[in-house]
Amino acid sequence: MHSTERIADRPHLPVGLEGEFTGWRTSSRDSFEINTGPFWHRHAPDGSILCAFRVEKKHLNGAGSVHGGCLMTFADFCLFAIASPVLQGLGVTINFAGDFVDAGREGDLIVGTGEVTRAGRSLLFVRGQLTVEERTLFTFAGTIKRISRTREPQPAA
Amino acid sequence: MHSTERIADRPHLPVGLEGEFTGWRTSSRDSFEINTGPFWHRHAPDGSILCAFRVEKKHLNGAGSVHGGCLMTFADFCLFAIASPVLQGLGVTINFAGDFVDAGREGDLIVGTGEVTRAGRSLLFVRGQLTVEERTLFTFAGTIKRISRTREPQPAA
Amino acid sequence: MHSTERIADRPHLPVGLEGEFTGWRTSSRDSFEINTGPFWHRHAPDGSILCAFRVEKKHLNGAGSVHGGCLMTFADFCLFAIASPVLQGLGVTINFAGDFVDAGREGDLIVGTGEVTRAGRSLLFVRGQLTVEERTLFTFAGTIKRISRTREPQPAA
Amino acid sequence: MHSTERIADRPHLPVGLEGEFTGWRTSSRDSFEINTGPFWHRHAPDGSILCAFRVEKKHLNGAGSVHGGCLMTFADFCLFAIASPVLQGLGVTINFAGDFVDAGREGDLIVGTGEVTRAGRSLLFVRGQLTVEERTLFTFAGTIKRISRTREPQPAA
Repeated sequence: MHSTERIADRPHLPVGLEGEFTGWRTSSRDSFEINTGPFWHRHAPDGSILCAFRVEKKHLNGAGSVHGGCLMTFADFCLFAIASPVLQGLGVTINFAGDFVDAGREGDLIVGTGEVTRAGRSLLFVRGQLTVEERTLFTFAGTIKRISRTREPQPAA
Repeated sequence: MHSTERIADRPHLPVGLEGEFTGWRTSSRDSFEINTGPFWHRHAPDGSILCAFRVEKKHLNGAGSVHGGCLMTFADFCLFAIASPVLQGLGVTINFAGDFVDAGREGDLIVGTGEVTRAGRSLLFVRGQLTVEERTLFTFAGTIKRISRTREPQPAA
Repeated sequence: MHSTERIADRPHLPVGLEGEFTGWRTSSRDSFEINTGPFWHRHAPDGSILCAFRVEKKHLNGAGSVHGGCLMTFADFCLFAIASPVLQGLGVTINFAGDFVDAGREGDLIVGTGEVTRAGRSLLFVRGQLTVEERTLFTFAGTIKRISRTREPQPAA
Repeated sequence: MHSTERIADRPHLPVGLEGEFTGWRTSSRDSFEINTGPFWHRHAPDGSILCAFRVEKKHLNGAGSVHGGCLMTFADFCLFAIASPVLQGLGVTINFAGDFVDAGREGDLIVGTGEVTRAGRSLLFVRGQLTVEERTLFTFAGTIKRISRTREPQPAA
């Protein structure tokens, strides 16, 4: 796929300037992700996309675990980060499925990785996992539909 | 199911005191839901559970639609509100699947409803939908596992 | 939706001529459904689509319950029967999610019903349930992508 | 995990005696799998579980592709084969989600592989993929609930 480097870097997204995510990119215009994140992504040395965030109090549910909605929000962020090299444009998530395998805790570094199993003309199939070190917290799969900028209001993404 | 009223009301949750959600209940100890919500629930006149929230700027993605992670977070809240009359204790979501049928916009009143298709000894099966007036935005299904208070760290909820 | 009657009847499909499914339609060119079925569908009096099959020994797993693969195969049949009034052409399932709520037994009449939550230009969102009398066995959701006859090999349906 | 070899081999299942699946094991008491299969599994040299079947006419839908219900039935077979080393007893699928990434054709050798992401006291989380050589046809995830032999009728598996 041409232009992978340029697109996957998504240079329009701001770069972390200090702390553990220095050099990673995050969202800048997505209110929900700004409020729930920041969520970060960068290229791994092997060219794959690496996503991550550090669990804070605001990510927890009443039982002190990372909230399922937080894991799903971050996983949705991961879908697009993982797909970015082949999406090269706009897309919306049309469906999502996930399994809550284990609990995350405050202070954990949650890492999201995955793969595009197919990049078609209209649909992209993506799946991945969220882990803390060797421990799998969440596995997920989602389908992204490519959209054009001129289209009318679209499903959520 | 005995004690439904007492549990479904979840009297430990705070009640809205003004505005359109006066008399509805919300979360008080769930950091992620407090930050992303407030999400509200109450009994409908027919005894079913009604959930709702009003879309603000903070719920939007970069395209101006309600973020998929926001819909999934609210749907996860709905799972537990819908299950509360038969859950009568603690539970964790073990899996979740949803379809992004249409987009929500700022100012929309998003309503969540659903049903418990089975309340077993260890598992509850729940499904539902998020709508804006007559329009379906999101359909979802989730499984909740009952847990005891004394158990070790659990998957996310 | 115009032409609903004509299409929903799917007059190219053979009609049951005797027994409890007299007047219902089934598949005729689908080897897998012929072998695992027959699965039947017809219009209910209210215009909705009704699907059904009678559980035989060949539908059972080793524990004497209806096999999960059988329920999913029938549910996939239901997706297309339910969508047929608005599909009006060819389509393929692109994803599927379901919950195994309860067990079916030999001799049960399993009924499938559901709804199209959105019929878009390229995608149809469908969900439904399989029941035996008042008992829910399986709930499911699937997305169908419209395809043209001239396209190259497609995902499974 | 102790006794892995003994259980994973599932010596109660019959072994293929001729042809390409010589030495693989299949189902013997599962009517639905016998009718739709035979589906086979064995240990790969690295100790993981390998599942496979050869696509015949009976597996096809009306468009000449492998039927979605066939892929899901085989995937459900794969769930249990993959889980067998850690299941060590009976289980039922409680939910299933899958993405139809590409089409299979008559004559294809469809291979199923996967992993147990968590084997808990009551639930096992499994995910996997069906491939033809380098091509991914279907990705899936399922949850298995352990059951005891003395329990009452159970959800499908």
